[in-house]
Amino acid sequence: MKRSELGKAQERAAAMLKSSGIALTKEEQEHIEVAGFGLGELDIQGLELITYVNNDRYCAKELVLFPRQTCPEHIHPPVGDDPGKMETFRCRSGKVFLYVEGAAAANIQSTIPPGSEPYYTVFHEIELLPGEQYTIDPGTKHWFQAGDLGAIVSEFSSTSRDEYDIFTDPRIERIPIVTEDE
Amino acid sequence: MKRSELGKAQERAAAMLKSSGIALTKEEQEHIEVAGFGLGELDIQGLELITYVNNDRYCAKELVLFPRQTCPEHIHPPVGDDPGKMETFRCRSGKVFLYVEGAAAANIQSTIPPGSEPYYTVFHEIELLPGEQYTIDPGTKHWFQAGDLGAIVSEFSSTSRDEYDIFTDPRIERIPIVTEDE
Repeated sequence: MKRSELGKAQERAAAMLKSSGIALTKEEQEHIEVAGFGLGELDIQGLELITYVNNDRYCAKELVLFPRQTCPEHIHPPVGDDPGKMETFRCRSGKVFLYVEGAAAANIQSTIPPGSEPYYTVFHEIELLPGEQYTIDPGTKHWFQAGDLGAIVSEFSSTSRDEYDIFTDPRIERIPIVTEDE
Repeated sequence: MKRSELGKAQERAAAMLKSSGIALTKEEQEHIEVAGFGLGELDIQGLELITYVNNDRYCAKELVLFPRQTCPEHIHPPVGDDPGKMETFRCRSGKVFLYVEGAAAANIQSTIPPGSEPYYTVFHEIELLPGEQYTIDPGTKHWFQAGDLGAIVSEFSSTSRDEYDIFTDPRIERIPIVTEDE
């Protein structure tokens, strides 16, 4: 991802948080994480996040999704003594469609990112509006997409070890590489 | 606490959350927890809370403090294999003064609840404005008071076992008894 794209995404995420009444410190604003997953289509498959705290006992993040932006399918595997990350998604604003393993919806409300269809395999749909939440058990494949106005989601979880996440799409790199603009 | 007082405090807390842009489901609104600590002076010593999730790995709550309302001094002791609850307070709106063990402030910005002075013993002051946060290690005595406009604080933590909390004030009962109005 180019530095200019990173900066633009950070500004856009910060504006969405501000208009939802979620306060960040200046330092947090400057360090909003932008995950493009190495796919080069951030607005379609990507995620913006702020990690408030991540210690050996618990983790809390704010996730920002641009309109119809999708976080690709992945699982949190066991790591050492940890049975895998367990997480609760609580929608704060906008709308988010979450997909987990289980009975597939007849017609899902999301659009699978074109060209990435083989890498989306679970379709049990949970729609979350502000104030609604859902807890995902460890080792459960999941992906999520914002509605037409985007979404802000609080994530409460056990310890986060993003580098161990397993994505269904083998092209994905979770930890981004930022390149300077030419 | 009388049922009418409980209902009034729930409505007041719900209104504060709403005006801060924090959405609750209808069911959550109806079950806002009101902790008066058995002291019979809820507006002075008390706390309103919504537990979003509390499982064997992590916990997340929203805490609401009325203007100048104080959560009395307590610690979270070890319970079995658990070294004690560790918690991160993140101010979402208003202002909160948090006191923990450590170098005492020369002049604290809170007013200790009159008549309860012997039960407030730690005075290392941390002032939290929206977007600011602080993590309290297990086994650390702490108490907190909202500023003049009240406060909303997100609490991210390890598993919560409120019934084991140890309050400095021996008169305190953490789990409330609700009595019907006469």
